[in-house]
Amino acid sequence: MFKINENYLKLPGSYLFSTIGKKVQKFTEENPDKKIIRLGIGDVTLPLAPVVVKALHGAVDEMGVKETFKGYAPDLGYEFLRRTIVDNDYKARGADIAIDEIFISDGAKSDSGNIQEIFAVNNKITVCDPVYPVYIDSNAMAGRTGDYIPDKERWSNVIYMPCTKKTNFAPELPKETPDVIYLCYPNNPTGSTITKEELQKWVDYANKVGAVIIYDAAYEAYISEENVPHTIYECEGAKTCAIEIRSFSKNAGFTGTRLGFTVVPKELKCGEVSLNSLWARRHGTKFNGAPYITQVAGAAIYSAEGKKQIKEQIAYYMKNAEIIREGLKAAGYSISGGVNAPYIWMETPKKMSSWDFFDYLLTKANVVGTPGSGFGPSGEGYFRLTAFGTYENTLEAIERIKKL
Amino acid sequence: MFKINENYLKLPGSYLFSTIGKKVQKFTEENPDKKIIRLGIGDVTLPLAPVVVKALHGAVDEMGVKETFKGYAPDLGYEFLRRTIVDNDYKARGADIAIDEIFISDGAKSDSGNIQEIFAVNNKITVCDPVYPVYIDSNAMAGRTGDYIPDKERWSNVIYMPCTKKTNFAPELPKETPDVIYLCYPNNPTGSTITKEELQKWVDYANKVGAVIIYDAAYEAYISEENVPHTIYECEGAKTCAIEIRSFSKNAGFTGTRLGFTVVPKELKCGEVSLNSLWARRHGTKFNGAPYITQVAGAAIYSAEGKKQIKEQIAYYMKNAEIIREGLKAAGYSISGGVNAPYIWMETPKKMSSWDFFDYLLTKANVVGTPGSGFGPSGEGYFRLTAFGTYENTLEAIERIKKL
Repeated sequence: MFKINENYLKLPGSYLFSTIGKKVQKFTEENPDKKIIRLGIGDVTLPLAPVVVKALHGAVDEMGVKETFKGYAPDLGYEFLRRTIVDNDYKARGADIAIDEIFISDGAKSDSGNIQEIFAVNNKITVCDPVYPVYIDSNAMAGRTGDYIPDKERWSNVIYMPCTKKTNFAPELPKETPDVIYLCYPNNPTGSTITKEELQKWVDYANKVGAVIIYDAAYEAYISEENVPHTIYECEGAKTCAIEIRSFSKNAGFTGTRLGFTVVPKELKCGEVSLNSLWARRHGTKFNGAPYITQVAGAAIYSAEGKKQIKEQIAYYMKNAEIIREGLKAAGYSISGGVNAPYIWMETPKKMSSWDFFDYLLTKANVVGTPGSGFGPSGEGYFRLTAFGTYENTLEAIERIKKL
Repeated sequence: MFKINENYLKLPGSYLFSTIGKKVQKFTEENPDKKIIRLGIGDVTLPLAPVVVKALHGAVDEMGVKETFKGYAPDLGYEFLRRTIVDNDYKARGADIAIDEIFISDGAKSDSGNIQEIFAVNNKITVCDPVYPVYIDSNAMAGRTGDYIPDKERWSNVIYMPCTKKTNFAPELPKETPDVIYLCYPNNPTGSTITKEELQKWVDYANKVGAVIIYDAAYEAYISEENVPHTIYECEGAKTCAIEIRSFSKNAGFTGTRLGFTVVPKELKCGEVSLNSLWARRHGTKFNGAPYITQVAGAAIYSAEGKKQIKEQIAYYMKNAEIIREGLKAAGYSISGGVNAPYIWMETPKKMSSWDFFDYLLTKANVVGTPGSGFGPSGEGYFRLTAFGTYENTLEAIERIKKL
């Protein structure tokens, strides 16, 4: 008789955003006259940029003609895209990354979830708390996190690094030595970021203790301040300890188009074995390349006109972030984030729980956000709003919250 | 110090098709005047059908306008596509599959590789020999296959079912009871197929011993004969023992566009746990949906005009299959397949090894095929040719082989 992967059964409850969805649906059914504004899930609202639309049309035409039709893409991605990424995202920032260290994928969520496969099951991971749930859940499914302890809302075999107001929303180096360190900057969900000097400390630490950093830089394009690293490879020694995950979802609105990439340096080794070769093997065995048309579209955002259009989209969302930030501040809320990231992290008023505040905001202001506790126990007492709504809705949502 | 997944190190050598690629490259460099014809890899050559091109353009336009822009797709796929699949691929064939049993993905290779994750590591798999390498490799990476024994070209903990001329290229029910049974019909690489009665025996067997069948039906559209099941759910009892994997790659030329789906019936259970819920959890955690534009394109092939165009493409390739089949027969070769599948499986002449025949065909006829031994030890002495080339090249390749 076949047996299932019992690790799946250890996963607690349903996914955060499906719980939110159900609550919102119930409220809408009971209050059909109320206009709900959603600033919860991190999904973009602006249409694809004109350069992207044009590139997609062009690539579709190529696929419709025998002479230019493309079958299977190269496993690791087309060289035209990988070269563009190397030149723009790495060389231009002084980071020496080679083309064969770039792996094109169907998005950062897949890569974030799959990357743990190349590590041993008995490796111990450390994550920030609160955290993007995929890092933990994918490790839990692989049996790497021990058991879930409902009372503590934590897994028995994970090193948690609390990121609260007390730590200035930054993790401290863990006391227990981890094997794999997940870092996400600019951070989802807190919107916080890290200076180059601070990140260098993590790189030095990882190299010293022999840990690998999985560096999720999906929100890199939202960095607005100086001295905030755009890639971990700006730090010295990062190539021997860090994997970087990048996305086209939030900088170019590809959430429904799907494209991302992961950088695995050849110098990153366990004994004689390069993690680059392991990831190449995984990519070659369980993935069949990202679509040609999507890769052409991805490359288009690196053209001069593409960069301009993408910058405008990001400016649009960051204007929303400013509205939320300044509006909440004016209303007396304690907030952080929203400067180098499209997320604003607020303290709930009057020590309300995250979910109580969710219900309060939904019923009183008809605004949907995300309860901080959904991202981990240290998120309790916090709440996330995103800048990905429309300008008009964002403005109205904040006006409503101000009136509460 | 972090440790790697050591199962990866057990994987033998490089991927079959990269070895072939290197051999062909070397020959081309040394013989720049020779015109190579590639009938090796199973990649399509016809451009996307006009309905698909039109659907893609339309969907791209939607993505370029605020009012119709789409962000994250539903994890399991858009309902318009899942409903179309249910109606056309299942209801129309008398198979009672529900919409929430269909999971849209970025292709059958990802699904074939990932499906093993929902099973326990100590489950024992059985595969045909020869076999599509992804089934074994993905299980090997998960530590489910024991050790690789180079002498035998086999893994110590896999039940192999030889499919040779002696067995009429069909597997026999294994003597040792497996937990997970991989079946692929129409078969890659042998091009053989199975009758409904024969498949019913497998379904009955799986239900009896408590095994799960992973049924890869990627080549379903190539079935030309009566009494060959298009889906395993035509068999009674299949919903309590079978998962079916389907592809848009070979029926609609999506190898470079990427779309597939997997059917996991809710009745398929281990104790109280439905595999449907486990696969939904995997999909929701490590995948973020197939692109909207691709799903619209996929739905287009089910329109009346779409069906017509796709049928023409398949007829084009099956004409090639006939040319190969009849040409090789006329030249005295012993062949099978090519009737319900785009693959022709030939015995090498004069008991040549598969790789010797590969070299012989490459150097004497400048034709590239795939050595049968690359698909498993029982493929030794066989050779695969594909019908996915152009008509002109296929004709010329067979003329050259005839003259040898």
